[in-house]
Amino acid sequence: MTQFATENHGDLIASDRVEGTVVYNRQGEKLGKIANFMVDKRSGQVRYATLSFGGFMGIGNDYYPLPWSMLNYDTEQGGYVVELDKQVLDAAPRYAGEDRPDYDDGYGRNVYQYYGLAYPW
Amino acid sequence: MTQFATENHGDLIASDRVEGTVVYNRQGEKLGKIANFMVDKRSGQVRYATLSFGGFMGIGNDYYPLPWSMLNYDTEQGGYVVELDKQVLDAAPRYAGEDRPDYDDGYGRNVYQYYGLAYPW
Repeated sequence: MTQFATENHGDLIASDRVEGTVVYNRQGEKLGKIANFMVDKRSGQVRYATLSFGGFMGIGNDYYPLPWSMLNYDTEQGGYVVELDKQVLDAAPRYAGEDRPDYDDGYGRNVYQYYGLAYPW
Repeated sequence: MTQFATENHGDLIASDRVEGTVVYNRQGEKLGKIANFMVDKRSGQVRYATLSFGGFMGIGNDYYPLPWSMLNYDTEQGGYVVELDKQVLDAAPRYAGEDRPDYDDGYGRNVYQYYGLAYPW
């Protein structure tokens, strides 16, 4: 499976290449890592990537659903760069690992609205 | 991270829940497992899920890109069920782990066409 770790072909990226990728903000501060991302089963449309940080060795982490469109891969930094101040993240929608949300439309609208984006579904 | 392994909320599914899931055909034959899946970086649209089988302990596996829309999750079987005879898979587009395709539009059209589906991009 290691051959997939660097899989990153033109317009497409492999799912397991996204997971674990570091996320920075525009100031170069490390915000956390992408834990995983949520896909609409029927349409195959990615709705959120989940940024995780805090805690220790994955225990006690908080998870922040981010609209997929916020992620931009930066080859120089080797990670995603998002337009996001740490203060904005401080008040952002989040959940603890054991307390996952239902990801229904109300939740989705709230997440997109928080980041100033239209909820497209 | 184990809390994500069973994450499967209504219309959405977690990326790491898809990876490793067993794939059966309508006859209940096990075809293989989903190794990973390919996402359009810009739009967040999933293009292919990669079915892997053959080989031993992941070495020498072949990889078969399947249009995402072919996958239907069956809660009873605990895996994806696809409308796919083993004979059809025998002649399907595939690649060895070390010989990945470019996943360009020509490749994509060929994959979708093989399974009798319109290439929507």
